[in-house]
Amino acid sequence: MIPRYSRPEMTDIWEPANKFRLWFEIEAHACDAQADLGVIPKDSAKAVWEKGDKPYTPERIARIDEIELETKHDVIAFTTELAELVGAEDSRFVHQGMTSSDVLDTCLSVQLTQAADILLADMDKVLAALKDRAFETKLMPTMGRSHGIHAEPTTMGLKFARYYAEFQRGKERLIQARKEIATCAISGAVGTFANIDPRVEEYVAEKMGLTPEPVSTQVIPRDRHAQYFAVLGVIASSMENIVIEVRHMQRTEVREAQEYFAPGQKGSSAMPHKRNPILCENITGLARIVRASVVPALENVALWHERDISHSSVERMIGPDATITLNFALNRLAGLIAKLVVYPQNMLDHLNAFGGIHDAQRVLLHLTQNGVSREGAYKIVQRNAMQVWKSFGIDPDNPDEPAKLDDLDKQAAKHDNRMFFFLSKDEELAKTLSNEDLSTLLDEDSLTYHTKHVDTIFKRVFG
Amino acid sequence: MIPRYSRPEMTDIWEPANKFRLWFEIEAHACDAQADLGVIPKDSAKAVWEKGDKPYTPERIARIDEIELETKHDVIAFTTELAELVGAEDSRFVHQGMTSSDVLDTCLSVQLTQAADILLADMDKVLAALKDRAFETKLMPTMGRSHGIHAEPTTMGLKFARYYAEFQRGKERLIQARKEIATCAISGAVGTFANIDPRVEEYVAEKMGLTPEPVSTQVIPRDRHAQYFAVLGVIASSMENIVIEVRHMQRTEVREAQEYFAPGQKGSSAMPHKRNPILCENITGLARIVRASVVPALENVALWHERDISHSSVERMIGPDATITLNFALNRLAGLIAKLVVYPQNMLDHLNAFGGIHDAQRVLLHLTQNGVSREGAYKIVQRNAMQVWKSFGIDPDNPDEPAKLDDLDKQAAKHDNRMFFFLSKDEELAKTLSNEDLSTLLDEDSLTYHTKHVDTIFKRVFG
Amino acid sequence: MIPRYSRPEMTDIWEPANKFRLWFEIEAHACDAQADLGVIPKDSAKAVWEKGDKPYTPERIARIDEIELETKHDVIAFTTELAELVGAEDSRFVHQGMTSSDVLDTCLSVQLTQAADILLADMDKVLAALKDRAFETKLMPTMGRSHGIHAEPTTMGLKFARYYAEFQRGKERLIQARKEIATCAISGAVGTFANIDPRVEEYVAEKMGLTPEPVSTQVIPRDRHAQYFAVLGVIASSMENIVIEVRHMQRTEVREAQEYFAPGQKGSSAMPHKRNPILCENITGLARIVRASVVPALENVALWHERDISHSSVERMIGPDATITLNFALNRLAGLIAKLVVYPQNMLDHLNAFGGIHDAQRVLLHLTQNGVSREGAYKIVQRNAMQVWKSFGIDPDNPDEPAKLDDLDKQAAKHDNRMFFFLSKDEELAKTLSNEDLSTLLDEDSLTYHTKHVDTIFKRVFG
Amino acid sequence: MIPRYSRPEMTDIWEPANKFRLWFEIEAHACDAQADLGVIPKDSAKAVWEKGDKPYTPERIARIDEIELETKHDVIAFTTELAELVGAEDSRFVHQGMTSSDVLDTCLSVQLTQAADILLADMDKVLAALKDRAFETKLMPTMGRSHGIHAEPTTMGLKFARYYAEFQRGKERLIQARKEIATCAISGAVGTFANIDPRVEEYVAEKMGLTPEPVSTQVIPRDRHAQYFAVLGVIASSMENIVIEVRHMQRTEVREAQEYFAPGQKGSSAMPHKRNPILCENITGLARIVRASVVPALENVALWHERDISHSSVERMIGPDATITLNFALNRLAGLIAKLVVYPQNMLDHLNAFGGIHDAQRVLLHLTQNGVSREGAYKIVQRNAMQVWKSFGIDPDNPDEPAKLDDLDKQAAKHDNRMFFFLSKDEELAKTLSNEDLSTLLDEDSLTYHTKHVDTIFKRVFG
Repeated sequence: MIPRYSRPEMTDIWEPANKFRLWFEIEAHACDAQADLGVIPKDSAKAVWEKGDKPYTPERIARIDEIELETKHDVIAFTTELAELVGAEDSRFVHQGMTSSDVLDTCLSVQLTQAADILLADMDKVLAALKDRAFETKLMPTMGRSHGIHAEPTTMGLKFARYYAEFQRGKERLIQARKEIATCAISGAVGTFANIDPRVEEYVAEKMGLTPEPVSTQVIPRDRHAQYFAVLGVIASSMENIVIEVRHMQRTEVREAQEYFAPGQKGSSAMPHKRNPILCENITGLARIVRASVVPALENVALWHERDISHSSVERMIGPDATITLNFALNRLAGLIAKLVVYPQNMLDHLNAFGGIHDAQRVLLHLTQNGVSREGAYKIVQRNAMQVWKSFGIDPDNPDEPAKLDDLDKQAAKHDNRMFFFLSKDEELAKTLSNEDLSTLLDEDSLTYHTKHVDTIFKRVFG
Repeated sequence: MIPRYSRPEMTDIWEPANKFRLWFEIEAHACDAQADLGVIPKDSAKAVWEKGDKPYTPERIARIDEIELETKHDVIAFTTELAELVGAEDSRFVHQGMTSSDVLDTCLSVQLTQAADILLADMDKVLAALKDRAFETKLMPTMGRSHGIHAEPTTMGLKFARYYAEFQRGKERLIQARKEIATCAISGAVGTFANIDPRVEEYVAEKMGLTPEPVSTQVIPRDRHAQYFAVLGVIASSMENIVIEVRHMQRTEVREAQEYFAPGQKGSSAMPHKRNPILCENITGLARIVRASVVPALENVALWHERDISHSSVERMIGPDATITLNFALNRLAGLIAKLVVYPQNMLDHLNAFGGIHDAQRVLLHLTQNGVSREGAYKIVQRNAMQVWKSFGIDPDNPDEPAKLDDLDKQAAKHDNRMFFFLSKDEELAKTLSNEDLSTLLDEDSLTYHTKHVDTIFKRVFG
Repeated sequence: MIPRYSRPEMTDIWEPANKFRLWFEIEAHACDAQADLGVIPKDSAKAVWEKGDKPYTPERIARIDEIELETKHDVIAFTTELAELVGAEDSRFVHQGMTSSDVLDTCLSVQLTQAADILLADMDKVLAALKDRAFETKLMPTMGRSHGIHAEPTTMGLKFARYYAEFQRGKERLIQARKEIATCAISGAVGTFANIDPRVEEYVAEKMGLTPEPVSTQVIPRDRHAQYFAVLGVIASSMENIVIEVRHMQRTEVREAQEYFAPGQKGSSAMPHKRNPILCENITGLARIVRASVVPALENVALWHERDISHSSVERMIGPDATITLNFALNRLAGLIAKLVVYPQNMLDHLNAFGGIHDAQRVLLHLTQNGVSREGAYKIVQRNAMQVWKSFGIDPDNPDEPAKLDDLDKQAAKHDNRMFFFLSKDEELAKTLSNEDLSTLLDEDSLTYHTKHVDTIFKRVFG
Repeated sequence: MIPRYSRPEMTDIWEPANKFRLWFEIEAHACDAQADLGVIPKDSAKAVWEKGDKPYTPERIARIDEIELETKHDVIAFTTELAELVGAEDSRFVHQGMTSSDVLDTCLSVQLTQAADILLADMDKVLAALKDRAFETKLMPTMGRSHGIHAEPTTMGLKFARYYAEFQRGKERLIQARKEIATCAISGAVGTFANIDPRVEEYVAEKMGLTPEPVSTQVIPRDRHAQYFAVLGVIASSMENIVIEVRHMQRTEVREAQEYFAPGQKGSSAMPHKRNPILCENITGLARIVRASVVPALENVALWHERDISHSSVERMIGPDATITLNFALNRLAGLIAKLVVYPQNMLDHLNAFGGIHDAQRVLLHLTQNGVSREGAYKIVQRNAMQVWKSFGIDPDNPDEPAKLDDLDKQAAKHDNRMFFFLSKDEELAKTLSNEDLSTLLDEDSLTYHTKHVDTIFKRVFG
């Protein structure tokens, strides 16, 4: 975790003040349950809350650290400081029958649950921004590309819609992972409840918003944590998926979209309106960092016997790192999407850059569906496609020499959809296809053709 | 994939015969849907099934390969071969309005779904074996260990029970991941349905046991696949978790359990009954291989624009590798658990190796709950614990010199629970504690104390 | 490994025929050494070579497999089959004092060394292609880009040169990793040489082109293998670095370079000259596969005591997979580079797309070095940069409204370097700068300015 | 990075004070070089040193942060603050012709070099400790184990010796990686030196202890960094390799070694001399953290065109995290090894636990070398091995029933090497083997047999 990529709401979760507060609540609730069961005096349980329910100020935390330096044991340091507040008489019932991991692991469950709640809210911000932009640009035509090469038209709104659907899936996964991690273990040294009643665990679990871990050892099983970090890794990759798109759209030669820059924000002297997609690049890197927690989390699952503590140092680092980094990146992403500047004219210019050549498959289909043989249709399409290229000065058989333009080419140049223009001049086609069919084909608005099912897709995605 | 770690049921899924069969079904169902919509002739759709619904024999596959060598395009090679069977007249309607990825990605969805079904059945085998062994060894006492160090007693059944619970979670995750991957995309070049009606996708999806992908580009979004492989990775780690335990139990100095070896199976001449945990070690390595697919699957998510094909070579390898390896390993694991030889006497010997010293916390609790102060209880426990160690010839203050044994030590040596023996001789304790309370403590069976909640846990896990 | 991404030269290394041949050589050389030491009869060692030095035909391999099915031990199966050839009398001295791992690990060292030799030759092909193309395009101007945004001019040759330098480093690392993996262990059950003389290891090492492993256990230490696969992973990433560049240069809006396609090779009917960078995308995916071996190789290092066999299944897969995939990808890459089609005119068009605005820093430097204050220089540059943008119809203060063009703008449009044009008209500049200095600045050829140190860099890279 | 796992010597490298100091040195040396070349006034270069060569106090750093908040550009904030110290007149020549990355990347090179130097010193501490312990325990017999199962004797010294050799290799790799990362780039916006003379780079490189980067773009190529982190990952795995061994040796049933605990250090009340291998488990987890930097570093290599900044956020985190964590872990490891408590008697007890059964192969070899046929020798060994097991009460044919002991068994029980005892009673063997040969075999000290080549190995490792 480094401050530059952190937000207080998430770092707070991993601060000592929150950790000790959770420890206190776990211990104090356990006392209540023990008192109810008659294991410890009711008055002592009451005293723990009455005297101990105080904020963990920097002074108290310093005192705990001081004790830990001596005892080299964090939970003992914590209970010792609590005893100073509550008094020896009552505090001696705190932690009775429990093992340190009961506190540590249950606390980690709460922290990861708290982190998940923030991340879910972050994802909602991203989803809201994506939905807004999707509807705003629903029918904004743009060139669809496969392999970085122009393919067929699509709409800017469909791009946002698919990220929305992807994030919606990510959110469902995180809800599930949150549910999986939200377990509580208060089961003693090796998980047998030998020294503490299972009802204590049930009570504390409910109070802490968790469910009891059905079977723990000394620890809560680490497949739960592995799943949690794996889900964060997939969300990080989805995040990267969006920003890679923006980075492409922002590159000089494309410039179909651009990260927003505040009016006063200073650029270089020579290129005040040119901007680097640095937020997107930053999120690309942050996605790598979040993903970096997946492998160690997987390596943490196989522990020796009823536990070894190799997972602990890993979690002390990836717990904060992955959640803080993802929290920061998701918020940056939400803002980025909300304010993304789009350039519809540039999109249209790219769409029309090759004279409607992208309508080739559409023409092919139309011809075969109107009685032209597959081979015949193929020849017609290819012949006219060659014409289009030639009108752009490109000879596909010899792409390195500029093709000579004739009058027809110059006429074609005046049409956005040169493909249709040449088809309308194709005499053989005229013979094959009825005038009516041909004009149906040529009259239909190309963009409408390509976007006619956008509504259907939006209904699927947004309901 | 290597034959040594493969099973035919899973490799078959990735064989050309299955792949081409699925391609055929996708195309033929699409024809039916197109015919229903009046886009292509009903008779042609019928002909595709009537003439094309034949097994993909090695001869047909060789023919497809031959065509692919020429055309360098797998889907064209496939449809060309199909046309040879169905006849040009009808086959020309096959694949109409579709893009190659519609076939490839939908096929991959089915393959991953088929693979998941096998893996779920494999997990059921593991679960069944774990459940059997859990109930069989439910109250078989064994030493619980943290950090590889003796802690408190637990039971062998609890070990199996926790692996059961862990695998049950893994199964739930896989069911979810299977559901997520089971989508169908027949949406054309960039996913707009410009050249094909969305109802075709819906029809094919239903026929193939899938749901329509709400919004695809040229491809089905790769976060679905990433999640799938991530879940396999977590299951692999859970698998490793079990075999690490067996490897520990089988090591020479522990020998509490051992992989089963057939009676006739030859060992070394000198150690015919000593066996290496090679199946477990093998599964440990295979877990690493399954996990190795997680990072590339995560790297596959961020594609350029409406698709780039960088994910394809990755999936051609990790698709088979991860599923085949996990299938093999899970089956090996199920057999291993079912036949695992356990040595209850060795477990007991370890349990009793240190004279009941593991009951220290229990005594401590008992004393404080019977009016002894925390400090007083602590002193009593420590004093008697020192006695126990001394009776084993160990002086904790000087562990490198053997301690001298006296008569009391020799008497103690005849008791499994030396801790209780020394406590019964402790005169100060006798003063502090009523005779009744002391005898309650000493009479209670130690093992029963530690296993009294096993039933509760089993009920939580197995219902 | 899948055939589609394999080349026989590399797959052969991992075939049984090569493996058994290496086993034979190791065993036979060991016999010679043992005979020299007087441990076994010289005639027997001689007989092993005379009768056993035969190719491993499919029949012999089938026989070994048959024996392995019975004995469930690969090395015993191998020596048994060898005994059938050599005769029991002499063959009984084969493998004496050795442990299976002596053969297996030494064989793996040879295989990885053989693989490295092929990969080094592959890298030489890539290097040769890069060098050729670097010199061919040494001064071919192209726009340098940071963040995907135009920055300052560079040359195509410099791109090739930096990949050359990067691959040269990769080669050095692989030479080093090859040296590290080329060790031989013939040291018995736990590496003590209790049952075999260290001189046998030294002899076999020399014969097999290896060095003796200074200290082995039952196995050769796995940090050597981890380093080997880590180096392959870095090379894979460098490979990806090149193809990402080509993919960018090939995208429709850039089209500065393109993968070569054979004249006869069929494209789509509509876009016969448009090509997808599928080789580059394929290599991107293959790089992920090669890298996927790094983590399992790192996880293989920490073995239990003198060995556990968890590394073995991992190596059976990543050994072939990583080397075969990298071999295939490097050869594909070498061909791709050698034949890459470059479009210098498109590069120039991009370079000139913004009227020399990229010379802003150059002008700034020139001014400050000629007595203009930093602030003054900044103002001059910015003023003229704004002019340039305006002449392109872009108002940086209001980029969404087209700017109105005046006469000066139209004049400027005739100059590639509009920046210089406007500077020559800048009256304030004329006052500040002497005529001489101004003309020096404006006369100098912009491209020469940017490429003046290309020679220096080439000398550094190519010597 | 978290304080718990950090040491100031390494964290200091990543603190603002060191970073800004390095930035200052790079800029100031560049001024000197520029002045020598006559590009900027000599007096200005001199003034930069004279007025600017001051420590970066918290106040200065706060001032820089303040400026960065405004300008949102770290290098501009730095130079602005420097200008406040040096004065506008001279400071305006600072950074001339350079790009931010020239400073940032060169600084990172120095930081990684400084980190490598500390890590190399750390490795020297580990190596020194390993060497000391290796010679101290050179001939301390202990049981070698494969698969966690007893194999043949080895010595504790050989364990230390092999870790020494492994760390020595790690050190060589780090020296190499340090050399690779120690490059300097001062080459301007896209690496062409258009605005700065290459001699500036050469001068600064020498002053900063680096070599000039032969060909940079805007950045130093990231394969160098990837290799660096990959090497740290391999070292981390070697570290894990050592601590896994200690964790095994320390487990209750083995207890051949134990982490050192200070005499005053408090344990549990009941088990004051029992200790958990928590340092080793901690290092196991830290190794996972260091390795977690490898994949993101590999993903950082492929940047877009002349640079994108996706690598930057990754390096801001893995740079400190990997080096700080490894520094901490290596120091912990060095102390752990130096003070590791070994229990030679427990080692001997394990060695003798099975009556010399581990000498089976030795006897087999001896017999065949003394004229007994392989089959005959095998029978003799097996027969006597069975005897040994029986004398331990184990019937290999029915391991679950205790075998009945006879007088011979009881006699055997008095011998450490029961195998030899039974062989001496074997009448058939007496017939087959001359008395002399038999006594040679039986007289030879078993341990000497197994350790006779330890010297040779030590010579190889330590010279």
